[in-house]
Amino acid sequence: MAANNLQMFQYIKRDTRDFINIDPLQTAGLLTDAARDALLEWGDGYSVCDYCNGALDLVKKPPIQEFVHKALPEFLGTDAARVMNGARESKFAVMHTLASAAADKNNYVVMDAWAHYSSKVAAERAGLEIVQTEKPEKEIMPEDFQKAIEAGIEKYGKKPLLTLLTYPDGNYGNLADVKKIADISHEFEIPVLLNGAYAVGRMPVSAKEFGVDYIVGSGHKSMSACGPVGVLGVNGEEAAEQLFRKSAYNKVKEVELLGCTSRGAPIMTLMASFPEVVKRTQPENWEKEVENARLFIKRLEDEAPDKFKLFGQNPHNHDLMFFEAPGFFNISEKAKRGRYFLYDELKERKIHGIKVGLTKNFKISTYGLGAEKTNFVADSFIDILKKYDEI
Amino acid sequence: MAANNLQMFQYIKRDTRDFINIDPLQTAGLLTDAARDALLEWGDGYSVCDYCNGALDLVKKPPIQEFVHKALPEFLGTDAARVMNGARESKFAVMHTLASAAADKNNYVVMDAWAHYSSKVAAERAGLEIVQTEKPEKEIMPEDFQKAIEAGIEKYGKKPLLTLLTYPDGNYGNLADVKKIADISHEFEIPVLLNGAYAVGRMPVSAKEFGVDYIVGSGHKSMSACGPVGVLGVNGEEAAEQLFRKSAYNKVKEVELLGCTSRGAPIMTLMASFPEVVKRTQPENWEKEVENARLFIKRLEDEAPDKFKLFGQNPHNHDLMFFEAPGFFNISEKAKRGRYFLYDELKERKIHGIKVGLTKNFKISTYGLGAEKTNFVADSFIDILKKYDEI
Repeated sequence: MAANNLQMFQYIKRDTRDFINIDPLQTAGLLTDAARDALLEWGDGYSVCDYCNGALDLVKKPPIQEFVHKALPEFLGTDAARVMNGARESKFAVMHTLASAAADKNNYVVMDAWAHYSSKVAAERAGLEIVQTEKPEKEIMPEDFQKAIEAGIEKYGKKPLLTLLTYPDGNYGNLADVKKIADISHEFEIPVLLNGAYAVGRMPVSAKEFGVDYIVGSGHKSMSACGPVGVLGVNGEEAAEQLFRKSAYNKVKEVELLGCTSRGAPIMTLMASFPEVVKRTQPENWEKEVENARLFIKRLEDEAPDKFKLFGQNPHNHDLMFFEAPGFFNISEKAKRGRYFLYDELKERKIHGIKVGLTKNFKISTYGLGAEKTNFVADSFIDILKKYDEI
Repeated sequence: MAANNLQMFQYIKRDTRDFINIDPLQTAGLLTDAARDALLEWGDGYSVCDYCNGALDLVKKPPIQEFVHKALPEFLGTDAARVMNGARESKFAVMHTLASAAADKNNYVVMDAWAHYSSKVAAERAGLEIVQTEKPEKEIMPEDFQKAIEAGIEKYGKKPLLTLLTYPDGNYGNLADVKKIADISHEFEIPVLLNGAYAVGRMPVSAKEFGVDYIVGSGHKSMSACGPVGVLGVNGEEAAEQLFRKSAYNKVKEVELLGCTSRGAPIMTLMASFPEVVKRTQPENWEKEVENARLFIKRLEDEAPDKFKLFGQNPHNHDLMFFEAPGFFNISEKAKRGRYFLYDELKERKIHGIKVGLTKNFKISTYGLGAEKTNFVADSFIDILKKYDEI
């Protein structure tokens, strides 16, 4: 391997680092100052293992035990919790546990129509088939789950191992009626998993209040942590024991966690950002984020009527928004750089987060932007339409 | 949750950070300067996803595609490779793939007697039983594998799905004859997985030269990367296609990887340290590490005969060493702080890495210490024996 070629892997600048990033993946993953400190202090390989006696979640110094066994379950509203390598790894752990414990093969999971691809891949990896709710006009209703469960029972001759709800879904930022969906599922005696990758760490959520059995969250997506890292909570002693069952070969190691999960900077950044995350998910702070998203929507609707159409719930209840933008699409058909014009225009304004080449439909998020930056993004959208004579 | 309690999770100092760390887990996981730069630049959540078009391993900027599809397979000596969440996750991916593809249940894996617990837990999670080679007096011989495979066939009435060799084992730092073991396994038409968590990134290894089918390495343990991160290589087109099979739900996402694995600072630090890792694994540089370990052993053997006994191969061929230390054990029986004396004495000398309370047996590593620090550790061991009148 030629040494000079290898230099390409070093000292790479991230040119979007100082941009306003409106990619929903990124807005709530920005590190806090405390997390940035943790990153440098704990960056080395296996740093947190210096004081480990065999079980990661029981490390007292740094206070991982206090975090995993006290702070995190309280935050998630669960009886037990663990730090995992991500939300998807958490979903797989739950599905794999249930699939492994099932008496027979040929099992399945019921999911909402807008389930994230990683929920489907987790089921697929666990050898489970999938029944999804029908694609709704606007939002997923509890009765859609009722129908999907009944359709599953009809098809497979047995109930599903799990019901999974994406809250909010990652396309439209819609918040379904989780309590009712959990109730319906429980009437069939099916456990419920809430995929809160865009909720946990952004907004108030409590698995107990919602009545769900499992909840997963994403550290890198919504808890201002350096990824990959996620959280997994479970309610019910029996379910917790099953999910976190110990190895037959090593009495302190948990099988679904392969012994240990996140044990370097990711868990330390997750912990370091946690006080800020707890604060920002207080109802009064989350309301400000919702207001901010609504302000953005209102500005576009007022100042460029017919040029932007919000999909999904309106008034909107989350920072993740999906727009149809016929104005931008029109421009793309005549602009010199075609469908790349929007990316270029936004880049010039130091805004990043709409995928290169998208103009007709895109999702964005205003999480953590505050009024000033949110208005700047709205101004930019309007200005671009004006520049190309669309309004 | 009381806000003042949450402060405990922030600004935690790592008091061992400036110590000489002789824990084998830590010596080759220390970040390089380039990795430290990458950590800060790419620390935010999902940072590398800013330019992703759906497949992490195909991201061109930063040059992840170049790393995953060119540099890494060349480095590992494999036809294909991926970046994973760790070595254990890689082992599970291989075992789970083979178990899922097997026509029947009730399958097993053959492993060396010193296999890491995570290899066993990976098999357990994949629903596979384990047949281990017999515990040898000193080192694992190819015929031990021959016997274990034959015993497995006798017990299960069929060959194992996989042979796994730990290279070196994590207890004694012994290097088994991998080529012969691979040959024996292949005679039975059983694929071979090399667990190189303490090899890949420390010493020259090539899956092709060894004749193994799968190889796994640990980024945080041996490649100077911020964990959790690991590497997985595979030889043979068919095996690669099976292992990296695509989802039925999403044509670019790989099932065993749950779509995407490491995608923030861990992969960027792995890449940033890679040029240094390639350099340090050149034969002439690895020889220096072996010489250094031998120097350490010789000093203890010469200056405190009968007080230290090296287990395993001697002359030793790896930086990971396991000692029986009757001198330290004697002291522990009379010292004020009992078996904690050694930890205290080393801490005073700013040396970390022997688990609190251990005196009679322990493993250490001199990787990357160089002659000066290695001599300082040897001096310290001798001084402590002298201080307590053991020599």
